Amino acid sequence: MPHLVILYSGNLDARTDVSVLCRSLADTMLAQRDEAGKPVFPPGGTRVLAYPAPHFAISDGGTAGRAAGGDGDYGFAYLNLRMGRGRTEAVQQGVGHALMAAAQAHLAPLMAAMHLGVTLQIDVGAEVFDAKHSSLHPLFNKPV
Amino acid sequence: MPHLVILYSGNLDARTDVSVLCRSLADTMLAQRDEAGKPVFPPGGTRVLAYPAPHFAISDGGTAGRAAGGDGDYGFAYLNLRMGRGRTEAVQQGVGHALMAAAQAHLAPLMAAMHLGVTLQIDVGAEVFDAKHSSLHPLFNKPV
Amino acid sequence: MPHLVILYSGNLDARTDVSVLCRSLADTMLAQRDEAGKPVFPPGGTRVLAYPAPHFAISDGGTAGRAAGGDGDYGFAYLNLRMGRGRTEAVQQGVGHALMAAAQAHLAPLMAAMHLGVTLQIDVGAEVFDAKHSSLHPLFNKPV
Repeated sequence: MPHLVILYSGNLDARTDVSVLCRSLADTMLAQRDEAGKPVFPPGGTRVLAYPAPHFAISDGGTAGRAAGGDGDYGFAYLNLRMGRGRTEAVQQGVGHALMAAAQAHLAPLMAAMHLGVTLQIDVGAEVFDAKHSSLHPLFNKPV
Repeated sequence: MPHLVILYSGNLDARTDVSVLCRSLADTMLAQRDEAGKPVFPPGGTRVLAYPAPHFAISDGGTAGRAAGGDGDYGFAYLNLRMGRGRTEAVQQGVGHALMAAAQAHLAPLMAAMHLGVTLQIDVGAEVFDAKHSSLHPLFNKPV
Repeated sequence: MPHLVILYSGNLDARTDVSVLCRSLADTMLAQRDEAGKPVFPPGGTRVLAYPAPHFAISDGGTAGRAAGGDGDYGFAYLNLRMGRGRTEAVQQGVGHALMAAAQAHLAPLMAAMHLGVTLQIDVGAEVFDAKHSSLHPLFNKPV
């Protein structure tokens, strides 16, 4: 943790490079600092996964978009960040606004070219069991 | 929001058109009305995304199905609707029953032809951050 | 329910057979017993779905891994089990430890060969609506 999962309509893959969006969002997460100036997220635990949906249905399926003179092609992206408990509300809001800004920057051309909905939500996990095993973390936790 | 995500075993794609199921479920969501007769979900915010899993394991893997004279091919579909807070329990239940009926109508031939499990759950989001940006909503919020 | 969903970076597919991991985890779930010696999960309701992400960004993208003499290829797998309410904390912890052990056994060669993070979390569903329809359960609920 944390991880950010992007679920989106598969028609976006022909319009933008989602791998670039993933990198931008991961860099945004890594850049977050808390009130004490410390990184909000550990580098070894920061990851973004994105999944294009091969099947989807959005809104009225294109009727209103075509009536408005467009091609009726709708898109949707849902960004969900799950993070651990214990961070302040200010940190949560700061992370959310920073991620949404990064997503909007990347998606602005699409937003202008098609009817696109983007939603970002942050959940604080309420897991009853949590286990980690990693050969990634040690890269960032070396003795000085 | 709301959005409905379908996670299912990839072997169903050869047996049914999941895009048609997505459209049916989206139409069902758009048709829902609350106690005052108003739409439960905004058209610009209604979407269904479906993901076939390329790797999966279900139940005993086919042993019991073959012992019962079948081919041991099992299927599974999990429908998860996440909606915002503030709707009545009656509305939540009504939405759930309507969606399950639509799913069952579409999947009835599969249910009869193979061993298939279908589960629908509705979660009310407990997000700590929520942001939306959309060029879809304006299509449905025009001044009269 | 229950179901276990695995979200992982798509680069793992070239290194291991995730279908085998799914089967191992399902068998582990089926083997769990509660304090009274009864199966924790019903066979007809046990399933594992795994999704490789075609787009992902992990940690610093490889910089630290290359600086450490590796190829900078990072991997990540997130295992999330959602189960119903009503089981004891001891059962939840037992299930979690058993699943993590099975995941680690399968992924040990990868963990040694690349920088890989594995996280397992268990959530107890707080759904407001829950419906099931199945032609799988009857296979396991036959009159004796």
